[in-house]
Amino acid sequence: MNEEGKKIYDLAGKLFPICRSITGNGFRSSLEIICGIVPEIQVFEVPSGTEVFDWTVPKEWNIRGGWIRSLQGETVIDFKDCNLHVLGYSVPIHKTVSRDELLEHVYTQPEQPDWIPYVTSYYKERWGFCMSENQKQSLTDAVYEVFIDSSLEAGSLTYGELILPGETEDEIFFSTYLCHPSMANNELSGPCVQTALIQYLKSLSHRRYTYRFVFIPETIGSITYLSRNLQSMQQHMKAGFVLSCVGDERTYSYVSTKYEDTLADRVLDNVLKFHYPGYIRFSFMKRASDERQYGSAGVDLPVCAFCRSKYHEYPEYHTSADNMDLISPEGLQGSYDVMVKVINALENNYFYQMKCKCEPQLGKRGLYPTISQKGTYEAVRAMQHFIAYADGRNDMIGISNILNIPVDQLIPIKNKLLEHHLLSFK
Amino acid sequence: MNEEGKKIYDLAGKLFPICRSITGNGFRSSLEIICGIVPEIQVFEVPSGTEVFDWTVPKEWNIRGGWIRSLQGETVIDFKDCNLHVLGYSVPIHKTVSRDELLEHVYTQPEQPDWIPYVTSYYKERWGFCMSENQKQSLTDAVYEVFIDSSLEAGSLTYGELILPGETEDEIFFSTYLCHPSMANNELSGPCVQTALIQYLKSLSHRRYTYRFVFIPETIGSITYLSRNLQSMQQHMKAGFVLSCVGDERTYSYVSTKYEDTLADRVLDNVLKFHYPGYIRFSFMKRASDERQYGSAGVDLPVCAFCRSKYHEYPEYHTSADNMDLISPEGLQGSYDVMVKVINALENNYFYQMKCKCEPQLGKRGLYPTISQKGTYEAVRAMQHFIAYADGRNDMIGISNILNIPVDQLIPIKNKLLEHHLLSFK
Amino acid sequence: MNEEGKKIYDLAGKLFPICRSITGNGFRSSLEIICGIVPEIQVFEVPSGTEVFDWTVPKEWNIRGGWIRSLQGETVIDFKDCNLHVLGYSVPIHKTVSRDELLEHVYTQPEQPDWIPYVTSYYKERWGFCMSENQKQSLTDAVYEVFIDSSLEAGSLTYGELILPGETEDEIFFSTYLCHPSMANNELSGPCVQTALIQYLKSLSHRRYTYRFVFIPETIGSITYLSRNLQSMQQHMKAGFVLSCVGDERTYSYVSTKYEDTLADRVLDNVLKFHYPGYIRFSFMKRASDERQYGSAGVDLPVCAFCRSKYHEYPEYHTSADNMDLISPEGLQGSYDVMVKVINALENNYFYQMKCKCEPQLGKRGLYPTISQKGTYEAVRAMQHFIAYADGRNDMIGISNILNIPVDQLIPIKNKLLEHHLLSFK
Repeated sequence: MNEEGKKIYDLAGKLFPICRSITGNGFRSSLEIICGIVPEIQVFEVPSGTEVFDWTVPKEWNIRGGWIRSLQGETVIDFKDCNLHVLGYSVPIHKTVSRDELLEHVYTQPEQPDWIPYVTSYYKERWGFCMSENQKQSLTDAVYEVFIDSSLEAGSLTYGELILPGETEDEIFFSTYLCHPSMANNELSGPCVQTALIQYLKSLSHRRYTYRFVFIPETIGSITYLSRNLQSMQQHMKAGFVLSCVGDERTYSYVSTKYEDTLADRVLDNVLKFHYPGYIRFSFMKRASDERQYGSAGVDLPVCAFCRSKYHEYPEYHTSADNMDLISPEGLQGSYDVMVKVINALENNYFYQMKCKCEPQLGKRGLYPTISQKGTYEAVRAMQHFIAYADGRNDMIGISNILNIPVDQLIPIKNKLLEHHLLSFK
Repeated sequence: MNEEGKKIYDLAGKLFPICRSITGNGFRSSLEIICGIVPEIQVFEVPSGTEVFDWTVPKEWNIRGGWIRSLQGETVIDFKDCNLHVLGYSVPIHKTVSRDELLEHVYTQPEQPDWIPYVTSYYKERWGFCMSENQKQSLTDAVYEVFIDSSLEAGSLTYGELILPGETEDEIFFSTYLCHPSMANNELSGPCVQTALIQYLKSLSHRRYTYRFVFIPETIGSITYLSRNLQSMQQHMKAGFVLSCVGDERTYSYVSTKYEDTLADRVLDNVLKFHYPGYIRFSFMKRASDERQYGSAGVDLPVCAFCRSKYHEYPEYHTSADNMDLISPEGLQGSYDVMVKVINALENNYFYQMKCKCEPQLGKRGLYPTISQKGTYEAVRAMQHFIAYADGRNDMIGISNILNIPVDQLIPIKNKLLEHHLLSFK
Repeated sequence: MNEEGKKIYDLAGKLFPICRSITGNGFRSSLEIICGIVPEIQVFEVPSGTEVFDWTVPKEWNIRGGWIRSLQGETVIDFKDCNLHVLGYSVPIHKTVSRDELLEHVYTQPEQPDWIPYVTSYYKERWGFCMSENQKQSLTDAVYEVFIDSSLEAGSLTYGELILPGETEDEIFFSTYLCHPSMANNELSGPCVQTALIQYLKSLSHRRYTYRFVFIPETIGSITYLSRNLQSMQQHMKAGFVLSCVGDERTYSYVSTKYEDTLADRVLDNVLKFHYPGYIRFSFMKRASDERQYGSAGVDLPVCAFCRSKYHEYPEYHTSADNMDLISPEGLQGSYDVMVKVINALENNYFYQMKCKCEPQLGKRGLYPTISQKGTYEAVRAMQHFIAYADGRNDMIGISNILNIPVDQLIPIKNKLLEHHLLSFK
């Protein structure tokens, strides 16, 4: 029943222990595992120092370990136990520090005292440790030994790209980010669901659209990718989706584009209102992942973020509590199912036009009851409504919205009319 | 007070006993009675077998009688008592049948056990009887004699058309159907109110619009008519109305066009909101009469259905209980009055433009109080508002909607301004 | 704190005793007092009898005194006590009249029995007195002596105009009327606040817009002014405001333009919703001052009326109770502040466009926190949102409405981005 969900969950489990960041070997080896499943993914390396729009690709960061010990040699915290313990992009350090100096380099989330927060300092060189507030409270010694075995050096930023060609150059875009250390919902769920969607799309005998997938580091990755592909993306993209936080079992949600009027908004809204009427639509004001860049002034691509419990909106977000227990095969399967419905709606989202004037005579084709008595028509009502609105002015999503019938149920009707040569589309 | 309503009711009473169908002598003789009142109506005959868009004109059906009798010669039901008793378009039959075989040919409406339902089988040859559920329950003999004296043969489909020319070729369209046997609201009310509206329009000294009226059989009739007149109708029609179920005294209602944005929608909505604020606006999803064809994909004419209690929405619909007691002179008069208001609104629905800049000085024309004190202005407020919005951007219906004042009350204001040469229109 | 308000209130106090009308020396001397503060105002005289669109400039009215006395010589009412006592535009009279004849020439507001109403008869020659209902009830003598020392003769209509040039010919327009006798809110508040706004605008080192100010008599004054300036105003005016009843401390309100869609509507709505969320927006149906003419058919200028308690809507309106106690420095200051905000919003209301693709890297400019942890972003959220919507599609007011942040708070953000060469505008 949740067959795909189980596979997705297993992949997430395999990736979970690796310490990833926006550059470095953790990202690289995680992407390699995904390439093991989808070998067609192309891997790109962009050198540190490359200018990408207003930004510069940073130095590459790698980390091998880190700890705080008492002078008696007792370990207070260790990177081996949880890779959130070292501040993301921390410079190396090895020295004895007073408690006061140490505390200036310690990050906690005091209102969630048991959890280790996820903190980074990509663009200013610092060293630092993250720990639970409770752990911080137990730092009572006067002096500690601190050690971070990291490197911050010229290297490169890594990303993966896959383009699955379709019948046309019109593109549907999927983007997810692989730069977070051991957190499950945010963000292994996105890369793992995206991997499953690639396999689904590869399995289709025919694709109307070309599909573009990227696995990038957040923010600097989308900026880097856009700096190399913007023109083509602006020319071809019809709809795009950032996949993020798609693994829990709470609500569904999405972040709208700036003016809430693109095909991406329309298809998500349409699919979710039938699939999960309690879904939440966030305005663009609530953006915080790569849809920030895709929707930025001058870029203006039609990209929504799709989530279950959205980043920033659930308590475990950016803490050690966002672990493999927070996500589930069921949760991942649900997101996968929504995106498959989205893809099917898009693939069938033509403007339909009846070929005959007036209603066709459905009866002679066995599509209409031959006895006319009140109460006999309900069964064919959906087909009649589809026929009425297949007047060249509405696409499939528009018809679905007008009729308040899911696209899933309209596709067989449309196919029957095509079979009988009653319908054209473009 | 209900003078027109009484005449309309009397005409309905005269037509009631005749057994009509979508073709045949019942339709023909009913139309002749109407032609007796409006001799200018032209009658057309379209041969069986004629192809009309996706459809074919069926054989002509005529019926002279029919009954079910016990072998003892007792009449169970007889066409003479109620012409709904024979299935519409039933083939002839005369034989002795077992109770079981008979029941396969008997139609009832079990949830309304006292009433005979109206059932037809136009496009598949069958024989059959309709009766009340109670009558069916009393069929306890093992064998019955059944007799239907009908014919189903090459002939023609009959319809009537009247075009009343006006100042322009722009057209207003009225359509009603005359194909139902003895049922009063659905559908003698429509043809009879339409007959009265023709007389009203003939009595006008001046008509801005050309008016097109048709008396047709439902569905196949509108398809046939459209197949012969579509191009001209698409070129000239500004608004159209199907008149159906306009004889009872319950609510008023109308069925919108597909996108609810045509002049037909606008004028009905405007007139009804002042005339009867509790009126019901049905979406195009609730269409079921000839507006189905007029609004179909590729035809796309601006036609609403106007009703009091709409077909499908009242309990007596398509049963023997839809009789002369269900309609009344008052009910018919009300519908007549609404349509006269609709016609007047349309005839006056120009875009108005004041000829002077700034407000005109109404005082010097005796149209404004000469004393200025708070409370003295209310009387001329409507005229001042009309003047403000007569800026060339709004038609009469638009101004009425903005000012929330019925068109009826704006027409004398408009006339006064025209008299004083302050206004132009186009 | 209410420094401007105090100056405005003092000016109103100085003007209060003068008896003004739509023509005559009262208007003239009031305008001279204002010219004493703003000497650049140009004064125009338009001769009686001049045709202005559908109207004619009336005779000039001047009044020196008037009273009703008993035959015993006791004064019943005297113009010296309150200049509302003589009907505006009353012809001269001096005779002995019966009580009955007198009462035909007496105007009261019976539902406000202590107050003298303000009544005029500009376009029909009459004599008359206004008094409180209580005063009228005390008229018990059989005969009275009545005296009105007025003149109604060929002369001219006076108005003042000031044009403050700006960087472009695009204009912002302010209009107020100076034709009311001793009433404070309606209408000394408008001319006095307008005088202060002129001083504010003169003090600006740079003005994007040209500002046009008029001090006119109501209705005939705006018609006269439009008859001489319409073409230029239609060509250049971007937004305009009638200032009326802007001196009390009750609500704020404005009267929309006809279609509620002009820059004047947008800026007032935007400023007031942040400044005073309980403000009232009246439809154009509630117009009654010069916005009637500015918004009339064929003129169609983008002019709203700005008020605190709107004319017609407060009990003291057009009575002797609309005195210097009804207005206050605080009340006048509030209106002044709103209009200064309106001017600042207009001056900054460009379409903004980010110069870089993707979000700029705010961090390297010290505009963004260098530590990324949940909860650290709120401070820069407004700037990020401004950047996102600075895509060339929105003006400043539009961005403010989308972000729900006052223009006042967006201007420093915009300035910071301009400083960093990240933004362009047009």
